Amino acid sequence: MSEKNMRYCLLLDFYGEVLSGNQREMMDLYYNEDFSLSEIADEIGITRQGVRDAVRRAEDTLDSLEDKLGLIARFERLRMQRAEIAAILSDTAHPPEKIIAEAKNKLEQLEI
Amino acid sequence: MSEKNMRYCLLLDFYGEVLSGNQREMMDLYYNEDFSLSEIADEIGITRQGVRDAVRRAEDTLDSLEDKLGLIARFERLRMQRAEIAAILSDTAHPPEKIIAEAKNKLEQLEI
Repeated sequence: MSEKNMRYCLLLDFYGEVLSGNQREMMDLYYNEDFSLSEIADEIGITRQGVRDAVRRAEDTLDSLEDKLGLIARFERLRMQRAEIAAILSDTAHPPEKIIAEAKNKLEQLEI
Repeated sequence: MSEKNMRYCLLLDFYGEVLSGNQREMMDLYYNEDFSLSEIADEIGITRQGVRDAVRRAEDTLDSLEDKLGLIARFERLRMQRAEIAAILSDTAHPPEKIIAEAKNKLEQLEI
């Protein structure tokens, strides 16, 4: 899957609910089910150009929401912070009491 | 602060960026700075009714986004899960190795 496709799959996960039912269905077929524009046109019963326009508009909506709300970026940061805490908890070179104290400290800093 | 006010302060934090600059300013004055509708009308230079309408529209936009995206609910859940992990790490009744193993387990289940 291309980087662009992966990005829109993620954007659909986060923001898909703001799209109309029709737009969401086309985006789901295009990005999650890997249908071509022509296949979606056949499935939905509109022209290929109509599908193309709807997909573009939906992409713009999702991009604009991420620009404004930044959820993907925010959750990526959270996952990195979680990985850091997991690494601390897995560190066998330090005494467990120190590990627990450090993990508690990092946990408090989690940006939620 | 009333529960309704607290809710809109939170909604503004999460979704305020999707509002127009003008709407965001009015909502900020109304909910964060505790201005009255008349005071905002004087400040912005439109009628009190105009402010009232703009605030209503902005409230609808924020409510609709939370209905669809559920970020407040999602972050509340995350904070509860974090509190559970913090409680595990603070539990002095169990051996540290067990505490670390349990915390790692809970950390993996964090919904991010």
